[in-house]
Amino acid sequence: MPSSGLEDNISLTKSDNDTLIKVHNNNGDLKLKQNVRKGWNIKASKISSLSHNRIRAIVESLQIKPNPEKPMIPLTIGDPTTFGNLRASEATIKAVQRSLESGDYNGYAHSLGHEKARRAIAKYSAHQSIEEINYENVLICSGCSSALEYCILALCDRGQNLLVPRPGFCLYKTLSDGLDIEIRYYDLLPERRWEADLRQLESLIDDKTAALLITNPSNPCGSVFSQKHLEDMLAICERHYLPVIADEIYEHLVFPGSKFIAISRLSKNVPVLTCSGTTKRFLVPGWRMGWIVVHDREERLREAIAGLKSMCGRILGSNTIVQGALPEILQKTPKSFFDDVINTIYANARLSYHLLKAVPGLNPIMPEGAMYMMIGIDVEHFPGIKNDTHFVQELVNEQSVFCLPGSCFDCPNFVRIVLTVPGDLMNEACMRIAEFCESHYRNDDSINENEILKYS
Amino acid sequence: MPSSGLEDNISLTKSDNDTLIKVHNNNGDLKLKQNVRKGWNIKASKISSLSHNRIRAIVESLQIKPNPEKPMIPLTIGDPTTFGNLRASEATIKAVQRSLESGDYNGYAHSLGHEKARRAIAKYSAHQSIEEINYENVLICSGCSSALEYCILALCDRGQNLLVPRPGFCLYKTLSDGLDIEIRYYDLLPERRWEADLRQLESLIDDKTAALLITNPSNPCGSVFSQKHLEDMLAICERHYLPVIADEIYEHLVFPGSKFIAISRLSKNVPVLTCSGTTKRFLVPGWRMGWIVVHDREERLREAIAGLKSMCGRILGSNTIVQGALPEILQKTPKSFFDDVINTIYANARLSYHLLKAVPGLNPIMPEGAMYMMIGIDVEHFPGIKNDTHFVQELVNEQSVFCLPGSCFDCPNFVRIVLTVPGDLMNEACMRIAEFCESHYRNDDSINENEILKYS
Repeated sequence: MPSSGLEDNISLTKSDNDTLIKVHNNNGDLKLKQNVRKGWNIKASKISSLSHNRIRAIVESLQIKPNPEKPMIPLTIGDPTTFGNLRASEATIKAVQRSLESGDYNGYAHSLGHEKARRAIAKYSAHQSIEEINYENVLICSGCSSALEYCILALCDRGQNLLVPRPGFCLYKTLSDGLDIEIRYYDLLPERRWEADLRQLESLIDDKTAALLITNPSNPCGSVFSQKHLEDMLAICERHYLPVIADEIYEHLVFPGSKFIAISRLSKNVPVLTCSGTTKRFLVPGWRMGWIVVHDREERLREAIAGLKSMCGRILGSNTIVQGALPEILQKTPKSFFDDVINTIYANARLSYHLLKAVPGLNPIMPEGAMYMMIGIDVEHFPGIKNDTHFVQELVNEQSVFCLPGSCFDCPNFVRIVLTVPGDLMNEACMRIAEFCESHYRNDDSINENEILKYS
Repeated sequence: MPSSGLEDNISLTKSDNDTLIKVHNNNGDLKLKQNVRKGWNIKASKISSLSHNRIRAIVESLQIKPNPEKPMIPLTIGDPTTFGNLRASEATIKAVQRSLESGDYNGYAHSLGHEKARRAIAKYSAHQSIEEINYENVLICSGCSSALEYCILALCDRGQNLLVPRPGFCLYKTLSDGLDIEIRYYDLLPERRWEADLRQLESLIDDKTAALLITNPSNPCGSVFSQKHLEDMLAICERHYLPVIADEIYEHLVFPGSKFIAISRLSKNVPVLTCSGTTKRFLVPGWRMGWIVVHDREERLREAIAGLKSMCGRILGSNTIVQGALPEILQKTPKSFFDDVINTIYANARLSYHLLKAVPGLNPIMPEGAMYMMIGIDVEHFPGIKNDTHFVQELVNEQSVFCLPGSCFDCPNFVRIVLTVPGDLMNEACMRIAEFCESHYRNDDSINENEILKYS
């Protein structure tokens, strides 16, 4: 046993089953302590062991050996910068340069963010409200993930439940599980352009339901909710006294012909916490610049918002150089830059939709925004392919095209592809997917044709 | 009641005490649901309401009206950049400029950080271990606060306890309270240059003790633990199977004549999670660049480290531009820059120590590192001053010098001053503190002289 320098005062008596420690306290009294740790049997805490990345777990479980004769085309990661065809605007970069050179943004910011940055976000988010947004309702966080974490943790207590979309972004569950916040899935219906099944949604609500989380535009579906649908959701929230957490990180990535409306803009009195950031639209996901805009004009969430603000003091995110640049980034990044990004994604969406729609056994659903497309797989027509995960694995191994299985989003028999790749790669990827499907597809007479036509 | 578009399927029956909702599910069956929420009585969650910033709460409770005839000198905030005399190195800024201009660091990083940045940290942290540090044991976080949060949450479960120093940084409690992790304070003894009371420390340990947290060099004390003292602590940890969380954010801020030794370097087998970052030494606290270095050669914490790594996937910090610049920042920031910073702080420490030691009723304790000095207050010699908080309040109101009450660090009858201010302001602040004390001090014969000499 190592020397403690305190041998006079402490002695250990160990037996197989127990440990007894005699400790003299400061007054010289003898204290006996039992049941101390008996070894280095240290487990991971619940929160850490349940901070589980479902996508990584599923992807890592695949037996992948890409076809060495074909260069890999990864259509998995929701990072628009991966391929180099989409790059941050010069204006965005220049704004950060100036912020850095000023030397004014190296110190700690206010725990909710620099006031100028918060004012800039309030202005930038004007479309979210019919009233002017006060900068005091803007909270800057370390990326939209941190914004979502704080909203969930501030509204949901241990033992409560949170309604989240299925298919949906798996982070909501990752953030909630370790804190004993139950995730309840409401279904998005592919046959209704991924609108929520409102009846099923409402049936999930009980006295332990803390909030409704919506993702609009949707990851992974690429759908954009209509005004009517959002109003129907608000009516449910009003009826059950549920605040909304709105993950609107894709708020400006909407294709021509579709229209995004912030749910907060439609809300009369239902409190809405809107999460967004620079990540997707400005093509800088690594910068970790996210925020929460609180819409709660009747102060129904007064206590919870105070708690939310306290939470921002835990780690004091996000990076101050980017905060210093934010007013310029939000105001001066040209519209032409945003248009170019959307045009690239939209062109890929149309291209891949039209190519894959013609492929037997595939049912792509044309997205209206974000940067993804979901493709239904008629697994029953692919003998030897067990499910979406197996489909993804074999597609990589034969064609070196890597999609995400729908199971990552609790949506089996779908795969998700990203639409941010260069057009020629998009085309090549679709051709390879088509080749893969054609070589595996079997149109067995015993299969019900209605199944195949389901989403066409 | 707002329209839901689903009136056919849902009806509400409300009474004063209960709400009954009839819902037809997808099969058309009638379900009755009770006990749904009855109003917007939404509370803050436990974690958010307990993410409590003690410093802010105490400071905001003060009745402060600074003396309008004297410009304010704030000696409260541990931000070395506040006064403009200490600025980040040109080399540090240039490294970030290059990273930004490269365009290579806008995308998502690995959830544990870019490999190059992690390798650079491993090399930079070589002093922490007698063995080479593998970059896989380096985890990048959104500032040292986030590093600390993840270490605490990965090692401590609900119902367990964590040993933290008193006086100490209040963030440990802020991060733990909402998760039902009990904070147990071990005392640092001013009369022993703030060494821990090891006997009292050991008496706190029971089977629910998850880890020992040490802060070295210490905030707020400015003390640096000796090798012998660290070895004594490790012996206790070995005896009780306790891993160490080492908050060593001030690892390189040590005054001439003192020596900092990383506890991980001395540990034979006790696992140590070391938290550090660029914040203090590089004068860029707002950048939120922190990290954890895992020292666990016997893999006693294997499960917990896996959990810790999972936790890093929750919010994917920190900013990638800074990550891209990190190898250059850590290697190329010149030694002369660090020396200048330490010389400034050390000169202020000596100046203020010598000026305040001569002041009746004050007992400054000369620091050996970090950027703070603790000053004992003989409150019993200041009639009309109730405690350290009241002392701070009256000092601001009369002299416009703002210190932090020791109560912010669970250390009553002390105040903490920061030592990063320009020398002339440091001098002016000390003169005003002296004037304040001299005008309030009463050397009543009834007071025990031993009390006054206590720390001299």
